Amino acid sequence: MTAKGTLFGLGLGPGDPELITLKALRLLRAAPVVAYPAPTGGTSFARSIVADFLVSDQIELRVDVPMNPDPQFALAAYEIGAEAIAQHLAVGRDVALLCQGDPFFYGSFMYMFGLLAKRFRVEVVPGVSSVMAAAAATGVPLVCRDDVMTIVPATLPVEELENRLEAASGIAILKLGRHFAKVRACLDRLGLLDRARYVERVSLPEQRILRVADVDPLSVPYFSMILVHRREDPWASEES
Amino acid sequence: MTAKGTLFGLGLGPGDPELITLKALRLLRAAPVVAYPAPTGGTSFARSIVADFLVSDQIELRVDVPMNPDPQFALAAYEIGAEAIAQHLAVGRDVALLCQGDPFFYGSFMYMFGLLAKRFRVEVVPGVSSVMAAAAATGVPLVCRDDVMTIVPATLPVEELENRLEAASGIAILKLGRHFAKVRACLDRLGLLDRARYVERVSLPEQRILRVADVDPLSVPYFSMILVHRREDPWASEES
Repeated sequence: MTAKGTLFGLGLGPGDPELITLKALRLLRAAPVVAYPAPTGGTSFARSIVADFLVSDQIELRVDVPMNPDPQFALAAYEIGAEAIAQHLAVGRDVALLCQGDPFFYGSFMYMFGLLAKRFRVEVVPGVSSVMAAAAATGVPLVCRDDVMTIVPATLPVEELENRLEAASGIAILKLGRHFAKVRACLDRLGLLDRARYVERVSLPEQRILRVADVDPLSVPYFSMILVHRREDPWASEES
Repeated sequence: MTAKGTLFGLGLGPGDPELITLKALRLLRAAPVVAYPAPTGGTSFARSIVADFLVSDQIELRVDVPMNPDPQFALAAYEIGAEAIAQHLAVGRDVALLCQGDPFFYGSFMYMFGLLAKRFRVEVVPGVSSVMAAAAATGVPLVCRDDVMTIVPATLPVEELENRLEAASGIAILKLGRHFAKVRACLDRLGLLDRARYVERVSLPEQRILRVADVDPLSVPYFSMILVHRREDPWASEES
């Protein structure tokens, strides 16, 4: 009987290929099968991060994920993808599943993990989160000493978003996209606009860092975030 | 006139040397001066992460930090260290300042940054946070979809800690050390003990993962954390 393969969930960081870890690079190159999600008809962001590191004889397994707003379509796609991965694992082939950012931090890897972790050995390799990369890019420390850090998706209702913003020292608001205008209005009401920075496509050549007031709400991609600092220390008010 | 050097704040990740990024490795090896904090009389954790990667002709600059509980002693030590770093930067030598984890996420790098960023060019390289590494080690996803993630230091007063624990889907409680018993009592009162995992020295050979109830409060080091998941999804209750 063949021993089953291992599924490696590889965190690849925010996008700069140099921000992948030595461990992810080693496991990526050693894997006979490399799987990654990709929007139907489009290119895979996760694959683009490591395109220069792939080995020529690796089997590539593209998991097509439809961009339909109804999550049932994506879930069905992940089920199909998980089954394709399972077929390789079942015959003893390790599979490297590529994950932008960190696999267990708001990633689609969670769906695959939920579908495969009970049947196969899974090892998760943590990656640099876009939150830490965005703080580094803005040049403003995220949290220190007794600060509380809260990470919220922009999809939350206005009231909850405002409560969160009032309660933490450092806040990262993720998944902005079409929720940007709502978030900007919340920051404005709370008098936090001057303490907020908008970061788009962090660590990539097209990275942009803007004051929230200077952002065109119609141009905000999903891969963007706002960092807010409520601290009163000398660095919080520093201009970037 | 000599051009001034650049200070590189290198995030080195949680401790496993393989969890450093390609970028941190490149900048580390290229730096003529490598600086790191170390407890007086002890070894530097940050230096130990990259000990095998150092280049033989690099100048090492050890910043001795006394373990006195009065923070004024540490602050004075950082000022002395920053001045020693400044002398190299002023004559055009780049300095790599080693930071475990991520430099802008609860790191002592913040003090050096505060002292040097106005006088010299500083570039921060983000690292893998111990929070993401701990989630990977426990095999339980941290946050997904509309979850809110909160990161709190265990140093907070009991009431604030309990409010935070009640308000988030995913919680990481850092800097446990002598605060462990207080945190355990909070988790117990809120009925969250079964949803919490204790992770010590994550990613190192001596890593330990325990149920919170099984931890000896007198043995808890500073480099430990508790992860709590309040989600009701199928993975939250998974046993590790």
